[in-house]
Amino acid sequence: MSGSPQPVRVPLDGLPARVTVYEVGPRDGLQAETDLVPTAAKVELCHRLYDAGVRDLEVTSFVPPSWIPQLADAADVVAALDVAPGSRAVALVPNLRGLERAWQSGLDDVAVVVSATEAFARANLNTDRATAVARSVETTRAARSQGTRVRGYVSMAFGDPWEGEVAVEAVVSAAVALHAAGCTTVALGDTIGVATPGQIARVVGAVLDAGVPVAGLALHLHDTYGQSLSNVLEALRMGVAEFDSSVGGLGRCPYAKGATGNLATEDLVWMLHGLGIETGLDLDALAATTAWLAGVRGRPAPSRVARALNAATTDPATQEAPAT
Amino acid sequence: MSGSPQPVRVPLDGLPARVTVYEVGPRDGLQAETDLVPTAAKVELCHRLYDAGVRDLEVTSFVPPSWIPQLADAADVVAALDVAPGSRAVALVPNLRGLERAWQSGLDDVAVVVSATEAFARANLNTDRATAVARSVETTRAARSQGTRVRGYVSMAFGDPWEGEVAVEAVVSAAVALHAAGCTTVALGDTIGVATPGQIARVVGAVLDAGVPVAGLALHLHDTYGQSLSNVLEALRMGVAEFDSSVGGLGRCPYAKGATGNLATEDLVWMLHGLGIETGLDLDALAATTAWLAGVRGRPAPSRVARALNAATTDPATQEAPAT
Repeated sequence: MSGSPQPVRVPLDGLPARVTVYEVGPRDGLQAETDLVPTAAKVELCHRLYDAGVRDLEVTSFVPPSWIPQLADAADVVAALDVAPGSRAVALVPNLRGLERAWQSGLDDVAVVVSATEAFARANLNTDRATAVARSVETTRAARSQGTRVRGYVSMAFGDPWEGEVAVEAVVSAAVALHAAGCTTVALGDTIGVATPGQIARVVGAVLDAGVPVAGLALHLHDTYGQSLSNVLEALRMGVAEFDSSVGGLGRCPYAKGATGNLATEDLVWMLHGLGIETGLDLDALAATTAWLAGVRGRPAPSRVARALNAATTDPATQEAPAT
Repeated sequence: MSGSPQPVRVPLDGLPARVTVYEVGPRDGLQAETDLVPTAAKVELCHRLYDAGVRDLEVTSFVPPSWIPQLADAADVVAALDVAPGSRAVALVPNLRGLERAWQSGLDDVAVVVSATEAFARANLNTDRATAVARSVETTRAARSQGTRVRGYVSMAFGDPWEGEVAVEAVVSAAVALHAAGCTTVALGDTIGVATPGQIARVVGAVLDAGVPVAGLALHLHDTYGQSLSNVLEALRMGVAEFDSSVGGLGRCPYAKGATGNLATEDLVWMLHGLGIETGLDLDALAATTAWLAGVRGRPAPSRVARALNAATTDPATQEAPAT
């Protein structure tokens, strides 16, 4: 076998022919970095991702710098971006003030966040659940009134570190509110990475039953418990065709120190290409970006595909026998 | 939420109610360790696994010590084992000589290996594909004639580092030969961890169509490319109810230095329990075993569930906001 390994393509019946891989590495991934990443490296990361075929890219977050010092350079990153033709640059905005800063930077593609649980709304969004929804609905309406595209995240949709199991009705009502307010896409977030495929079937099924169209639904999975790809497979069977991931699996679980972060783009793309699903992404270019980023960060990223593709192959003759 | 996290149980229709988790950590995991692990630690590992509920345990391999110095103490490990009532201790045997050594040690539960490809047979089994099958068939018949239980591995069933794509017919003929010779279980091995769910459906379907009963079929997956659990999910839909894994994800890919090893038992059990499938295993005891083993090995194992369960939880108030 010459060249770098690629998955053998064997489609399964009934899955989407094409999937949107929504890349969150520069925002959700870098947000978790303790050491400040230079602005120029963030910009280069975005450009490398566009070059690897990424069309849907969340580039930063317009939050108060005191909340996330790592993203204090949001406007500088956007100003230096050369967005590829046909590609998107999206910024997360927590409220109207964030939306205004995104507009000032020249972006007209934003994302808002709500929580499916009270505990997370209070701990992370500094308000109660209902107020967080009202704030994001207000932000979404203001954005849509100017033709700005809006993505709505529902965080903690499958589990919560304080409350444990999350009420399906809470996820549904949040998703319906975001959709009704004009969000183009509603992304259900497994913020702590605990979901298994039965939960995906139950929660996604309930959101679809409530009238959110499947074409406007995405899954935002963290790989904390290594469950992401089986959840993607289940969602594909339900017709979901947009999944969030971060290059290299950058990011972390905000509530378990040392645990892994977002679903890695390379791991997702390996499965999708293996299933014969088009993504427009170049696996080797993604793995090369992860290798470059390891140099910037001073440590490797957790993506298993990136590790395998970037690993030195060893001499078969030196291997233990027999292997299974 | 008090106590350690557990998956929320939400079954999916049509999956087995109970699954056998066949633990290969002491054999396939330790086989990959460069530094010699003390015999006493190997024995303690086996006892900890039995205590965690493991009933099907591959404890070592009776191969010539020159092949795998790490397993040169196979007879000593078996002699020191206190096998829990109702539990199995299995040893891999490459040939009749290995079977005799297993018998001498007091074991009557063994595993044999064949290759689905010529390249792997030559590189790893030191013979051609047909001779490897003949040798394992001969070993299986000899074992069965004495009432010894035999498991048959088909290595490289989904991809090969030299040949790339593997002919489905080669997997089928090897599986049928092992089944016909008397193997109680045939385990299809994704030795380099490249398979995706469409391949599982195709290869497992072909093996079942050829007459190997689903109750006698297992999957032996490596997580090199992070694909294992989506492959398990697909196989569960086909009725497969036995999966191999190693505690902590111990082991490695023999052909990619630095890549990860076997599917981690904890990651598998998280998904199975989340799906409401019984395993008889105690997730916390498994993660505690992995934490203990990290001390023995001097480095952590790759299991994501073990890392999350063993991670220090962090103060929610110090977390970045907003998180998705």
